[in-house]
Amino acid sequence: MKAVLVLNAGSSSLKFALFAIEPELAEHPALSGQIDGIGATPQFNAKSAAGERFEEAVPTTSSSQREQHRDALTHLLDWLAAHNPALEIAAAGHRIVHGGDLFSEPVRLYGHIMLKLKKFVPLAPLHQPHNLNAVQAISAMAPDIPQVGCFDTAFHRTQPAVAQAYALPRKISAEGVKRYGFHGLSYDYVARQLPSVIGDKASGAVVIAHLGNGSSMCALRDGRSVASTMGFTAVEGLMMGTRTGSLDPGVLLYLMDQKGMSSKDLTNLLYKESGLLGVSGISQDMRTLLASAAPEAMEAVDLYCYRIARELGSLAAAAGGLDALVFTGGIGEHAAQVREKVAKLSGWIGVDIDPEANAAHASRIDSPSSKVAVAVVPTNEEGMIARYTVDVLGL
Amino acid sequence: MKAVLVLNAGSSSLKFALFAIEPELAEHPALSGQIDGIGATPQFNAKSAAGERFEEAVPTTSSSQREQHRDALTHLLDWLAAHNPALEIAAAGHRIVHGGDLFSEPVRLYGHIMLKLKKFVPLAPLHQPHNLNAVQAISAMAPDIPQVGCFDTAFHRTQPAVAQAYALPRKISAEGVKRYGFHGLSYDYVARQLPSVIGDKASGAVVIAHLGNGSSMCALRDGRSVASTMGFTAVEGLMMGTRTGSLDPGVLLYLMDQKGMSSKDLTNLLYKESGLLGVSGISQDMRTLLASAAPEAMEAVDLYCYRIARELGSLAAAAGGLDALVFTGGIGEHAAQVREKVAKLSGWIGVDIDPEANAAHASRIDSPSSKVAVAVVPTNEEGMIARYTVDVLGL
Repeated sequence: MKAVLVLNAGSSSLKFALFAIEPELAEHPALSGQIDGIGATPQFNAKSAAGERFEEAVPTTSSSQREQHRDALTHLLDWLAAHNPALEIAAAGHRIVHGGDLFSEPVRLYGHIMLKLKKFVPLAPLHQPHNLNAVQAISAMAPDIPQVGCFDTAFHRTQPAVAQAYALPRKISAEGVKRYGFHGLSYDYVARQLPSVIGDKASGAVVIAHLGNGSSMCALRDGRSVASTMGFTAVEGLMMGTRTGSLDPGVLLYLMDQKGMSSKDLTNLLYKESGLLGVSGISQDMRTLLASAAPEAMEAVDLYCYRIARELGSLAAAAGGLDALVFTGGIGEHAAQVREKVAKLSGWIGVDIDPEANAAHASRIDSPSSKVAVAVVPTNEEGMIARYTVDVLGL
Repeated sequence: MKAVLVLNAGSSSLKFALFAIEPELAEHPALSGQIDGIGATPQFNAKSAAGERFEEAVPTTSSSQREQHRDALTHLLDWLAAHNPALEIAAAGHRIVHGGDLFSEPVRLYGHIMLKLKKFVPLAPLHQPHNLNAVQAISAMAPDIPQVGCFDTAFHRTQPAVAQAYALPRKISAEGVKRYGFHGLSYDYVARQLPSVIGDKASGAVVIAHLGNGSSMCALRDGRSVASTMGFTAVEGLMMGTRTGSLDPGVLLYLMDQKGMSSKDLTNLLYKESGLLGVSGISQDMRTLLASAAPEAMEAVDLYCYRIARELGSLAAAAGGLDALVFTGGIGEHAAQVREKVAKLSGWIGVDIDPEANAAHASRIDSPSSKVAVAVVPTNEEGMIARYTVDVLGL
């Protein structure tokens, strides 16, 4: 089997997926899985398309996180070779969180490109270094495998300057403090599916809501991003599983001045203790909250949906109207109650859904009288990376 | 003349206005002015309704800011008595920035109320102490003058809980970190004028844009606030003269981590160096920017208008539609180009203006085909305070 290996390297995990590319690129992976617990006790998990499951410990001789990352990759390549003797890895495609202002397209990863990508580490210190380390590790282990970088930010580089700007002094904006937007691989994938789901409206004013543990929304016009809720970082915009989303910057100043909180304290508060978890005090998991009878759970869900409806209005302004609203991501694809609440709050803009279609998670859930097409489209970020990789390399 | 004295005490200034209350409360002040430079070299300025101007230095024996505030008030009361021998100050009405969660109405200022208002000092450390000091100074100098506090936050207490909430842990929200909203005296005044300007639409879905050096917007339904762009502090929401408006909280974390900025540095950056001034690099004054040929000036104006249009969409979602858009404040009342740019960006939601009416700053500027009523209504926060004061005291 000739295949593209898709990699998404995080701080303590390495996600992977193997996409066959002959006779043509497969839509879904032949095999996918992850190595978790890197830096502690790494554990390998995988699942084949046929449903076969694999699980084993990853042998490691070092306690250094960086070396365990390398051991994890070695283990992955060895395991793949052992389980698929006919496997030929034609390329590796990486999810790289930040392409800064420079990359509006996926790119083949050469040494000089890597140097440019390293400059974006301060913009995404929790993710970018791990993304890049995985590229370097593959280069060292298997220098013949060509590698491609696919950026979460690239899709949004079509946004007009006003949508990317903060009202900060020019000097700070010029240093790169601007709205980059994220989840671009998901938006690009979903946007490509839209013509078959909503027809001509796909080239109109569309808002895609990528709702998962990380949640964001994107306004599109002619299939291109014109605005997004995530900005300089992935904490801005919608309320998320454990992230605040948009927050008065004056709240941070207050917490620093009145409670002596440090940047580390604030980072922890805003990224780990807030969102659905913080408001409910119960869970960050939408399924748990929807199943709960506690009023605090419903409060969290209601705030989550209200924030989506408010951003929908704001993004419609950016797109110059609303022809279609599209739900994707774990919550967007599976939480009918969330879609229903958002739709109820968005009747003013012409959104009306069919309760049965919504309950069935149908691909079209708008009612016959809805002015706005409403769709549910499963995302496939790994498939998008595989597609980019094949295209960039001309495989 | 029997009159209400309206006071707005800031850190280095004391604004005042004198409203006659017989035979009935006057809409506009008989006299208004301010004492500037308190803490340095205080200077008194006043203007009568007839256009007479007064200017003089304020004698002060102390260099302490607090004592100079007291001297300024003493000077004001003495000056008023000297220039209006028949003047009877029936009451003093104060603009007080923060009424927290407790005050959804203006209130007569007794000692136990003042104790409650002191608790809100941490929520508005730059304004609340000065507001309260002026009340105490009047009590000491003229204990027979009844005093009323009018809050910038009170009008917004009708907002639903979701509109007032951040997605922070419950414990932090319970301590008062929520969206209070400001400019409430202006919104209340303008909302009371609306029935005579836009008829029945005044009780529908209305968005008021209060655009001045401080700028914010408010969504109303049935004349009551349902959402606002300013939140916990007056830095959130729209871009302003020198304030950023909404900003990814991750930008603050980045500036702390990568540039070692302190809370004081950040406060200065976000409140004093950003907004129109920061983006243009030229001026915080909209008139200067509109008259400038520099592309940076137009960039700043365009970003300012874009942000208004985005928030208009978001606030329409909060109000469940848009029947009317109302401009007020220095920029809102006088900058036809700003109104025109906002209207162009808001055609999607049914806003269309008549260029001639707009250029003439007419009270109705919507075109015959506009689905949304568009109005220009001069605000009168001091008149609102006088009205509240008369009503609370039954004068």
